[in-house]
Amino acid sequence: MSDVKRIAALRQMAFDQAQLDGFVVFNSSNLIYLTGVPGTASLLIPRNAENTIYVYGVNYEQAKAEGKDFTIELVKRDENLIEKIAEQAKEFKIGNLAVDALGVVSWRSLAKQARGRMKLEVKGDLVSLLRAVKDEAEIELMRKAADFTSEGMKTAYEVLSPRMKEFEVAAEIEYAMRKRGSNGTAFETAVSSGPSSAFPHGGCSDRVIRQGDLVVFDFGAVCKSYRSDMTRTLVAGKPSEKQKKLHAIVNDAQEEAFKTIKPKVKARDVDAAGRRLIKAAGYGDYFVHGLGHGVGLEVHESPTLNPSSKEKLVVGNVVTDEPGIYLPGYGGIRIEDTVLVVRDGAERLTKGSFGLGLE
Amino acid sequence: MSDVKRIAALRQMAFDQAQLDGFVVFNSSNLIYLTGVPGTASLLIPRNAENTIYVYGVNYEQAKAEGKDFTIELVKRDENLIEKIAEQAKEFKIGNLAVDALGVVSWRSLAKQARGRMKLEVKGDLVSLLRAVKDEAEIELMRKAADFTSEGMKTAYEVLSPRMKEFEVAAEIEYAMRKRGSNGTAFETAVSSGPSSAFPHGGCSDRVIRQGDLVVFDFGAVCKSYRSDMTRTLVAGKPSEKQKKLHAIVNDAQEEAFKTIKPKVKARDVDAAGRRLIKAAGYGDYFVHGLGHGVGLEVHESPTLNPSSKEKLVVGNVVTDEPGIYLPGYGGIRIEDTVLVVRDGAERLTKGSFGLGLE
Repeated sequence: MSDVKRIAALRQMAFDQAQLDGFVVFNSSNLIYLTGVPGTASLLIPRNAENTIYVYGVNYEQAKAEGKDFTIELVKRDENLIEKIAEQAKEFKIGNLAVDALGVVSWRSLAKQARGRMKLEVKGDLVSLLRAVKDEAEIELMRKAADFTSEGMKTAYEVLSPRMKEFEVAAEIEYAMRKRGSNGTAFETAVSSGPSSAFPHGGCSDRVIRQGDLVVFDFGAVCKSYRSDMTRTLVAGKPSEKQKKLHAIVNDAQEEAFKTIKPKVKARDVDAAGRRLIKAAGYGDYFVHGLGHGVGLEVHESPTLNPSSKEKLVVGNVVTDEPGIYLPGYGGIRIEDTVLVVRDGAERLTKGSFGLGLE
Repeated sequence: MSDVKRIAALRQMAFDQAQLDGFVVFNSSNLIYLTGVPGTASLLIPRNAENTIYVYGVNYEQAKAEGKDFTIELVKRDENLIEKIAEQAKEFKIGNLAVDALGVVSWRSLAKQARGRMKLEVKGDLVSLLRAVKDEAEIELMRKAADFTSEGMKTAYEVLSPRMKEFEVAAEIEYAMRKRGSNGTAFETAVSSGPSSAFPHGGCSDRVIRQGDLVVFDFGAVCKSYRSDMTRTLVAGKPSEKQKKLHAIVNDAQEEAFKTIKPKVKARDVDAAGRRLIKAAGYGDYFVHGLGHGVGLEVHESPTLNPSSKEKLVVGNVVTDEPGIYLPGYGGIRIEDTVLVVRDGAERLTKGSFGLGLE
């Protein structure tokens, strides 16, 4: 689906279903999704006029080169973006205007311009709903991002040894992904060893990894703005019986949740499938987050897989499956893949079983 | 200045000068600045009670371990962050509450809770003003980030050769910075060659670099969340007379602007100093952005250095000095350093002159 088709789908939702006659996009990921034009500050979709993108001078030449499907408006240094959009909305005779998202200060400015001229509302869900279902072009990019990520994980296992610093391992992982073509990292690469492995967001520091530490690798590559997300946990040495047991529980929970992923399943039921195993093993209180989240242009997007999720899965959703057990003062284990919902079930995009220990 | 001292300074601005009796922080960089506690969702500073941070379950154990200076409130899965803060603001008898920033949807929810109980306003400038003036601890981190960045630039010049792909050069730059201890990249590394060098945000693709191309390197390292920003432009081969001339103009403009940077100078006058040279050389219309911007926890923050800036520089500001000339269809040249304002002038944090050509 091209950008034009995505906007056509949004037009249908906004104008035919939601009875709007104008829609303004400010969220940067939504702008990438709908325009593909770098440096776009905003997009105005009027019911009865051309799709218009707004760019500042610094990005104007690039927008002209890459934004063939749009009317391009230059926002000059002495102009105000919000006022300019409000002015054009008036010219386009828009009576009911919605925005996808906006900070309160800009919102107030827009509301002031709109007063007596048009009705204004926030409709955050329209583009999110579209983005939650990936099209062919997006899935291809996410496959590539996931392949880079799996290669990065292979490297993590190859290079790790006790006495390395966490960030030194991160350097090798990122280098391996980048050399293959990754456009950066999907989020801050985590190499969390020892005590910090017990924190779901344990990060990456200059701590020296010690023999026998649990080490959580959590990272992702990027392919043309599409992200990936993968976690494995290993022991820097010979795993203890307890480490083996915990790893097996998390691994089983991840597999059990994976097996439930298919179209029409409630997202909360996928969470429950993984959570049930961890609870049964006596570690329910130590699985302190939801089972997963959507991934795409952002590393966290719709749908969400947790006990209070309201969504049902559909073909084209891309979600993480990432149960974990976190024992404060001891360490933590998490196993995560990025998973695509397909017609008859699910497919792991990130993959690889690398074992638990270094032996 | 510790987190506690920063909050004390904010308390003085908010409570003594702005007549508030409560302040809520939502912006993630402001939260790092004021709390240093990873995973903090919000910070409530009440005039007459303890500073309170709000965290979700996934980050609770880590916040308890690292947030000794704060009362820590767990936001449970069935609780709403905004409602919880409003409830506590009421308990703390806050009558005039301000927030640093908020999306319109959350703002409306907060306003609904506040109705008839307290006055609500947005005060985005208070923490920005504090953050614009770096303290000793921040300057030390920014020096480290800048050192990593200068090393990355050295690597860029060492590895570049025609026939490499842009992203392959980026891989080497990032690896060099990361191995030395950088905590990731300050923003998406740009290696923009040939036609894309003419775009100030030309990015980094899989384009093969050709003999004689202008190549713009624009990137930065990170040290404990503090960023750096540096640009150099080189020719992948022997520079032409025109390339040499353009490079000399931009280099002179960068130096001229640098010489004007000192306390009490108007930010717009620094921009003017660099712009004057480029205009005099006949390329005024091709310098399509401001001369610079503040750098710190975010890569763009206060103060801003452009023709409409209102700020005056003070000791402790960290800003970029980055004039450029962009000729559509031909190519572009930009030279940038991250610069610290000191008592008697300015000091380049990123540094290194690497020449223009590959010979």
